[in-house]
Amino acid sequence: MSRLAAALALTLLAAPALAQEAKRPTPAEVLKAAPAEHWRVPEPENLLYMTLPGGRVVIELAPQFAPNHVANIRVLAREGWYEGVMVVRVQDNYVTQWGWPEDRGEKPAKVGKLSLPPEFTVKGGAKSLPFAKLPDPDAYAPEVGAVGSFPAARDPASGEAWMAHCYGIVGVGRGLPLDSGSGAELYVVIGHSPRALDRVITLAGRVLKGMEHLAALPRGTGNLGFYEKPEQQAPITAVRLGSDVPEAEREPLQVLRSDSPTYAAWVEARRQRKDDFFILPAGRIDVCNAMPPVRRPPGS
Amino acid sequence: MSRLAAALALTLLAAPALAQEAKRPTPAEVLKAAPAEHWRVPEPENLLYMTLPGGRVVIELAPQFAPNHVANIRVLAREGWYEGVMVVRVQDNYVTQWGWPEDRGEKPAKVGKLSLPPEFTVKGGAKSLPFAKLPDPDAYAPEVGAVGSFPAARDPASGEAWMAHCYGIVGVGRGLPLDSGSGAELYVVIGHSPRALDRVITLAGRVLKGMEHLAALPRGTGNLGFYEKPEQQAPITAVRLGSDVPEAEREPLQVLRSDSPTYAAWVEARRQRKDDFFILPAGRIDVCNAMPPVRRPPGS
Repeated sequence: MSRLAAALALTLLAAPALAQEAKRPTPAEVLKAAPAEHWRVPEPENLLYMTLPGGRVVIELAPQFAPNHVANIRVLAREGWYEGVMVVRVQDNYVTQWGWPEDRGEKPAKVGKLSLPPEFTVKGGAKSLPFAKLPDPDAYAPEVGAVGSFPAARDPASGEAWMAHCYGIVGVGRGLPLDSGSGAELYVVIGHSPRALDRVITLAGRVLKGMEHLAALPRGTGNLGFYEKPEQQAPITAVRLGSDVPEAEREPLQVLRSDSPTYAAWVEARRQRKDDFFILPAGRIDVCNAMPPVRRPPGS
Repeated sequence: MSRLAAALALTLLAAPALAQEAKRPTPAEVLKAAPAEHWRVPEPENLLYMTLPGGRVVIELAPQFAPNHVANIRVLAREGWYEGVMVVRVQDNYVTQWGWPEDRGEKPAKVGKLSLPPEFTVKGGAKSLPFAKLPDPDAYAPEVGAVGSFPAARDPASGEAWMAHCYGIVGVGRGLPLDSGSGAELYVVIGHSPRALDRVITLAGRVLKGMEHLAALPRGTGNLGFYEKPEQQAPITAVRLGSDVPEAEREPLQVLRSDSPTYAAWVEARRQRKDDFFILPAGRIDVCNAMPPVRRPPGS
């Protein structure tokens, strides 16, 4: 290093603003430094394991937002109702949807329900749910943040809270009648988050692992992205609750606790990210770019 | 209809609020009613036609935002530089990227440039670019809207305008040096819009047709979604400017003019959408859900 360069480097290090920047950890460094107890192992009965031709998908169900639908999904999974379910619809920049193909007629359930009253919002949820609030404005809701593993919104005026339609969020397919969904037919968001669907559809979970097996499927060419021929449908060969999967076969997934200081620090590190590539910090973040990170624990 | 039902129907029709709702056109009806001159045919020299194994992709280039990069992309296309270019990277919920594979060594250009000064924002663009401003807040920018076919943001304080990183937007791949991009390597957003990239990467266009051929590709398993084996790469077998495509082979695409009353009416119809399915109007819209619609003209 030349003497001029060395002097310049010292000058830069001495500048308080730059020194602070130099100390700011990256989002990856924030996660690496997190104590183990800031990571949460989802309850096995809240996990849904699905096997597709491309690989395994793990969904965390959200009883905080849709208790009746989640309970029903558990019953349907245990009674084997999902056997023979297919991916029937893939609409680009929107959703991948799976259910019992219409051309096979209706499939009755033994114990599970095939229609349920909607759970579009949680009444009183704005107060009752632990909400890690984000600091930036949102196009769709007065306040946004995270509840557990899930992106969330709330309205202090109405007292309601609800999950936000972000990439990877799992929703309950329904027809026009509000109670025509049950969790028997589900979809996942595979494009820019269609937040206009917030509060008109029940949201039941989030894909923690295996999104690529749902998002990279061929798009359907029929209306709304439905496949026009049954042979285009991808089979879902197994749907099991995590608690029914032998322990040795479970995924050791952990989700960063949204009520931990590490989550707040990670959000801030992303908002203020500045490095050789990100030369200008956004200074902001939106709810769908701030979903609590998922990992396999180190060494697993 | 029973007399009671008929009376009820009359009562409902007489209620001013409901009558107004009944009159509100749907987004599809707004587009159907648009006069032909509210639709714009993109200039053929601003279109880039790419052929992938799955089908054809049409990109509209954005000289308003990146004049030097667009000019360079035209030169590279005309000199045949893109021959042999491959999809080298597909990262879920992020980008699909194509360029000259690194393992083949560097590919020199005859006339086109392989590095260019960045065009991250348009200085003075907040005033000089025709901006159809959206009414709702944005997480990332003081103001958002549309400029031509493109989602856009601006900052009245700095006077700058820039394109927003929405689904389907095409960016200029670069390394750490700010001038290491040129348009020789490009990417497209295939997930929730990564707006933190706004103003740190040059954006050069928008996919008008064929997103499914880029978004449904298998995800790469290497770091950042790069394919680990050359045989996983998808070839891009032809890259031509629209003006170099024989007229009979061109796509008859039209984009709704963002400076037309129809665009404003369509945005409002989407913001206030209320029907048997959308029981609760969002009352809001975000910039990446408000990109000017694309169509083939009726009868084509």
